[in-house]
Amino acid sequence: MTLSPLAPASFPELATIDGVTLSTAASAMKYQGRDDMLLMRLDEGTEMAAVFTRSDTAAAPVEWCRQRVSGGIPARAVLVNAGNANAFTGTGGIAAVTACCSAVGEALGCNADAVMMASTGVIGEPLDTAMLLPHMPALAAGHTSWHAAAEAIRTTDTFAKGASATATIGDRTVQISGIAKGSGMIAPDMATMLGFIATDAALPHRVLTSLLTDATRRSFNAITVDSDTSTNDSVFLMATGKAGNPLPGSADDPGLAGFRAALDQVMQDLATQIVRDGEGATKFITIDVSGAADDATAHRIGLAVANSPLVKTAIAGEDANWGRIVMAVGKAGAAIEQSQLTISIGGVLIASGGARVEDYDEAPVAAHMKGANIAISLTVGAGGGTARVWTCDLTHGYISINADYRS
Amino acid sequence: MTLSPLAPASFPELATIDGVTLSTAASAMKYQGRDDMLLMRLDEGTEMAAVFTRSDTAAAPVEWCRQRVSGGIPARAVLVNAGNANAFTGTGGIAAVTACCSAVGEALGCNADAVMMASTGVIGEPLDTAMLLPHMPALAAGHTSWHAAAEAIRTTDTFAKGASATATIGDRTVQISGIAKGSGMIAPDMATMLGFIATDAALPHRVLTSLLTDATRRSFNAITVDSDTSTNDSVFLMATGKAGNPLPGSADDPGLAGFRAALDQVMQDLATQIVRDGEGATKFITIDVSGAADDATAHRIGLAVANSPLVKTAIAGEDANWGRIVMAVGKAGAAIEQSQLTISIGGVLIASGGARVEDYDEAPVAAHMKGANIAISLTVGAGGGTARVWTCDLTHGYISINADYRS
Repeated sequence: MTLSPLAPASFPELATIDGVTLSTAASAMKYQGRDDMLLMRLDEGTEMAAVFTRSDTAAAPVEWCRQRVSGGIPARAVLVNAGNANAFTGTGGIAAVTACCSAVGEALGCNADAVMMASTGVIGEPLDTAMLLPHMPALAAGHTSWHAAAEAIRTTDTFAKGASATATIGDRTVQISGIAKGSGMIAPDMATMLGFIATDAALPHRVLTSLLTDATRRSFNAITVDSDTSTNDSVFLMATGKAGNPLPGSADDPGLAGFRAALDQVMQDLATQIVRDGEGATKFITIDVSGAADDATAHRIGLAVANSPLVKTAIAGEDANWGRIVMAVGKAGAAIEQSQLTISIGGVLIASGGARVEDYDEAPVAAHMKGANIAISLTVGAGGGTARVWTCDLTHGYISINADYRS
Repeated sequence: MTLSPLAPASFPELATIDGVTLSTAASAMKYQGRDDMLLMRLDEGTEMAAVFTRSDTAAAPVEWCRQRVSGGIPARAVLVNAGNANAFTGTGGIAAVTACCSAVGEALGCNADAVMMASTGVIGEPLDTAMLLPHMPALAAGHTSWHAAAEAIRTTDTFAKGASATATIGDRTVQISGIAKGSGMIAPDMATMLGFIATDAALPHRVLTSLLTDATRRSFNAITVDSDTSTNDSVFLMATGKAGNPLPGSADDPGLAGFRAALDQVMQDLATQIVRDGEGATKFITIDVSGAADDATAHRIGLAVANSPLVKTAIAGEDANWGRIVMAVGKAGAAIEQSQLTISIGGVLIASGGARVEDYDEAPVAAHMKGANIAISLTVGAGGGTARVWTCDLTHGYISINADYRS
């Protein structure tokens, strides 16, 4: 797999999170010569929040985790496998998750219900647990880096994705580190693809859930590669509490302002790395929408533009075909008045008041289209709703990757 | 432009409709060496119904027609131009439509309000009426065939699209003939792209409108190429009354059963020809959904599958990757139970009861995927809702066509 031209120069330095231990293993289930299993071990007392796909055909591991995380049961481990999604696998799929989590629980000396699982890969193939179970004892004893962990969860990803930030809560400095995977079948609905973010902050389960839901809206739910929503989307946020900060009473606690900003930073960094690794991507596109009736409407308009194949192919061709943006805004069903629509690309005003500006000069826009970072800005009315979403272009690479991924 | 591999062998014989006269002209606005203007002249007494895009950024000609058709004003002509959509052109766009329709009215000796207009082409470019107006006198006097008319309205279409049928109302035989254009920016919402269907039947405006709306749901609104909805979608149904049949009192009149079937036949034929000419298409895909809570839900699930880039690229690659169908059904937001989901491709049962069938043999499905006509059948529950939708695959051809269409 050729490295995405939008890939970061290198994997970033990720802070170690006290209370989290990582280990990886190679099952050879689909990928040869590389690790494809990850175990995240969590010290006792770790709180966990998670968001999952809203798909009606959610995978077995999603169903397993959803039932356990929402109740606030303290988690002790997260097991991840790459290569088989264990989705649409019926009762056999649930049995496979149970077997895996029980084996991890046995190796760690904890209850299977305290073990979460996330899977990514082909849909509909039964998960062969015989290829995973023998590795549990080694996983329970191993120790590796965030970088190795991020490598082990890749599928069509061309680079490993990580991000880290620091914040202060009370008098304590807390660390946030996270990894993610995702490249295709990327369209946000609640969460998207796999993300694992850990912090040493002390945060009650209810606060943690609120922080995660809020940050997800501005990160993983604000990206799209191809409008297809995975059966396995899962984002986990784990707080080990080792930093010993004072416990906040709510997610709105003013003392959490720095933490919220740092969490946004990590999650938006990971989410935009997924876009930068979008299948076949050659352009990274940021779409800002303002003037909508509310934030949700602005978000909908932004995603309509971000998901339009005609907008994405035009950008792939470095064609300043802004008429397709007009089309995409129009189909969003957001009841906007076209006479109030303003469009800028690369900071150049192209259209205003429902028509192209009179002295429009395409030259600077055409120059902007040749770059790797495309900025589209839309004002759709006089309302206060705003949103920012990210996507990539649609290229021959996407077709090549997806016309023969499974075979 | 290479002819679509899914194109019909030839343009069909279309019955002449008494009361409808066609003529074409070449404006050289965008296309050289071919006609790109069409005028359909309608005898006095012709009733017209029409459906239009629901886009918030509907084009100027759509706004012009919508205001006039809904009131039941008898139409005397329809003017079509290919190469410029006159969309997002502000007050100048409305002025351009007014100028064109006035010029036609003057040439024909009728009111401008009795002249409809439909445009297709690039969005956002002002329409240069100086290139169109000189042709009005010749258009008002000319006479050509349905085939020439269908050729004149093409843009990225690789073949001209026509269909014809006959029905009986009372003791009279009536004819239906229609043409359409469309290839990209095809996703139905109320109507899709341009369609012009004429009949010599006598049908009151209210009945005509009801017949058109109903038939559109099962034809132009049941197709998708790329999920993008045009600013200019318009379908017109014209009834000249020359057949002299008894006037039906309502669209449900049992005496209209044959006419309804014939109208369905013509409109579904035209709609599926648009799919067969989908940009880059190499496979024609029919998706049948049954067992949904209602028809609208079945339709939504069908379109979720039909619009999924991952399903469409898998079919392009002749890969029986049915797990992507599971994914697409899941993201439809139709609240289905995956344990009730049944999937067949090419008549072969693949999945049932929420998992792959035990003795699944991929060989016959793989063989079916190599053909040009792909049949997907889904049962999503025990409800009575059904739908059939049509789409094409997503290929390198789509990317090539759309990454440099405007330039």
